[in-house]
Amino acid sequence: MNKTKAEILTIGDEILYGQLLDTNSQWMSAELDKIGIKTIRKTTVGDTREDILTAFKEAEARVDIVLITGGLGPTNDDLTKPCLAEYFGCEIAMNEAALQEVSNFFASKGLELTEVNRLQAALPVCCDMVSNKLGTAPGMWFERNGKVFVSMPGVPHEMKKMMTDTVIPQLQQVFQTDIIFHKIIKTIGIGESWLAEMIKDWEDSLPEHIKLAYLPSMGQVKLRLTAIGDNLDKLKVEVESLIQDLHKLAGKYIYGYDTDQIEEVVGKMLLDQHKTIALAESCTGGYVSHKITSIAGSSQYYQGSVIPYHNSLKIDILGVNEQTLLDHGAVSEQTVYEMANLVRKRFNADIGVATSGIAGPGGGTPDKPVGTVWIAYADGEQTITRKLQLWKDRDINIQATAVALLNLIRISLSKSIEIKQ
Amino acid sequence: MNKTKAEILTIGDEILYGQLLDTNSQWMSAELDKIGIKTIRKTTVGDTREDILTAFKEAEARVDIVLITGGLGPTNDDLTKPCLAEYFGCEIAMNEAALQEVSNFFASKGLELTEVNRLQAALPVCCDMVSNKLGTAPGMWFERNGKVFVSMPGVPHEMKKMMTDTVIPQLQQVFQTDIIFHKIIKTIGIGESWLAEMIKDWEDSLPEHIKLAYLPSMGQVKLRLTAIGDNLDKLKVEVESLIQDLHKLAGKYIYGYDTDQIEEVVGKMLLDQHKTIALAESCTGGYVSHKITSIAGSSQYYQGSVIPYHNSLKIDILGVNEQTLLDHGAVSEQTVYEMANLVRKRFNADIGVATSGIAGPGGGTPDKPVGTVWIAYADGEQTITRKLQLWKDRDINIQATAVALLNLIRISLSKSIEIKQ
Repeated sequence: MNKTKAEILTIGDEILYGQLLDTNSQWMSAELDKIGIKTIRKTTVGDTREDILTAFKEAEARVDIVLITGGLGPTNDDLTKPCLAEYFGCEIAMNEAALQEVSNFFASKGLELTEVNRLQAALPVCCDMVSNKLGTAPGMWFERNGKVFVSMPGVPHEMKKMMTDTVIPQLQQVFQTDIIFHKIIKTIGIGESWLAEMIKDWEDSLPEHIKLAYLPSMGQVKLRLTAIGDNLDKLKVEVESLIQDLHKLAGKYIYGYDTDQIEEVVGKMLLDQHKTIALAESCTGGYVSHKITSIAGSSQYYQGSVIPYHNSLKIDILGVNEQTLLDHGAVSEQTVYEMANLVRKRFNADIGVATSGIAGPGGGTPDKPVGTVWIAYADGEQTITRKLQLWKDRDINIQATAVALLNLIRISLSKSIEIKQ
Repeated sequence: MNKTKAEILTIGDEILYGQLLDTNSQWMSAELDKIGIKTIRKTTVGDTREDILTAFKEAEARVDIVLITGGLGPTNDDLTKPCLAEYFGCEIAMNEAALQEVSNFFASKGLELTEVNRLQAALPVCCDMVSNKLGTAPGMWFERNGKVFVSMPGVPHEMKKMMTDTVIPQLQQVFQTDIIFHKIIKTIGIGESWLAEMIKDWEDSLPEHIKLAYLPSMGQVKLRLTAIGDNLDKLKVEVESLIQDLHKLAGKYIYGYDTDQIEEVVGKMLLDQHKTIALAESCTGGYVSHKITSIAGSSQYYQGSVIPYHNSLKIDILGVNEQTLLDHGAVSEQTVYEMANLVRKRFNADIGVATSGIAGPGGGTPDKPVGTVWIAYADGEQTITRKLQLWKDRDINIQATAVALLNLIRISLSKSIEIKQ
């Protein structure tokens, strides 16, 4: 199928030199993707005439649509507009419609139109003005030989409004586009390579028009299915049945889809099962509690936590048996077993969980090297403990332990459903 | 001076289609900037052989250095390695040094090396292997006609370690670069515009070869001085004297320099003053404890925390007076006052701090809208309380409260030094 191709061109020294993070191009390409326009390249150049003109030329040769952000400010170092006028070979003149909009914008704020801002309403005569409802720099729409260039401000909320209100609808009119359907399947508790081996046959059997991508992150692997066709409902049905097959192979590792987060999924399970949770965190130092409480409404199932970092507090505050610490140490199965059960009782929760480990870089011993972590789950009926052997990096060990603990809660809560069924 | 030019090439459909935000290229260009290498373009292409090879060719024609991330995973959709081998015209063979590293990496986790991961150690014979201390995909360093291509994994922490340990030092060796000296001055507790107003004359008096940039972030403003010249020692002396002048104007807001973090600075103050700290976190849900314990060695001054999210725990676990909660509510000066003093006593610490507020989105009332937060500091001699009126966003409110509390600890500890002096 001959897909419509797009390139996203970001203009600005501050992005090129790393002073500013470009979040626009991600959002824009995701929006294009939704209407079946394929972004085949993203380019960033600085505020330099030659580089901007070269980027225009290269992009026009590659794609049908060039979306440009940045370089529209009122100051002299903003070159996008003069470069577009030069590239499309027309002069810049005051655009009355644009001037009216900029004037209204200032009036609405009770401000007087400055000369600098008045000049922002001057546009290349060979483009159509694109309204900017939230700022002073109008967008510009150019068409030549069936190719479209659109210039938008770099300010994210101004660009997004312009894209949603005008650019996306007009692109759908101008170009005949495919339909693309994406589904992200989120797995946890299995490495990319193990998962790849586990689902190899399933992956090999995917039809030509449905592609699979692996997106690994800390302790998780996202699988993205991309289906291309001309009937959205048909694509959804196809993907749904593929996911059902995938479930037969790796269902126990799948915790959610698309934008689901593990702490969100665990929270929803607790809510649905009318269960409350309390945490005793040692090596994770509050990070798991932070993840859980980052979810709005978590107060409905999250009771609280204790972080008995100093061993004396494991005894004084939580009530861990001193002899346990003496015999087995703080980083041991016995200690997290007690911590999980004690915090459950003391904090009056249905479920208690615990972490204790050597996050590093210090504190390692030959039999308990940095990265040795114990986690535990207790719900009154059962107590589950797990040992993790993680990395040498403190931050990573804290994050990886959090993911492992959240997954242990997820697995235990899933089981308790199965038991009831 | 003829500056060395670089291009950053990001490879991967997930970034091209907007499934993943590219934060690597910002970080990388900022690192290059620090050593006087100018990034003149950033490019993103997908997992497509032709597009990758074209991007290599275009980049080689434009710049001296091409830094590549992504497309090094063990799965079939990763094409960077074969494309590099094809582009530089050599075959891929097992690299014994790389195989040794990958094997050690798996052994350190007590895992068996899978075939898929073993294959990651096969590299183009015309490149030098770049060690990956935190993952299984080695980096690759190519040199041809005085131009350098470096391929790194897309996983941020793996790429950053590789850049810092190997790539940046080697680039400095290979290329003759300007001498650039950066110094970042970190301020907290004052907004960008107020700070700019306060130091206006100082800023206007900066010499031509020393530039100032404002880098605002959550509750903090970083000032970056960039000095360019041919004598590093001379530049350092100049910048140092400028900083001394800056101190006279805004010293009380300056908490550190360069990579200093507020939680690190507070930790060092506690260590130097031989003081321990304990936290009672409500609305921040463990985030402040997480920040404090993210610092290696924090166990020397951090005793522990309690997160009495549910009000009953504020009474049962921490010992807050029930009448206080009834009379003033959990989000009140009286409650955080008690929380800070109680956690100090119960956790046997020199200093106790507390947070209680309405993070949102729910829970707001007319007299206590979302974003209303109380924080407290208690050290036995004094108790300091502060009210914050923050935003409507839950994440931002949690982060802003953490910054405000850490700054309150910093200010209190600085005072206690002054008193002693």
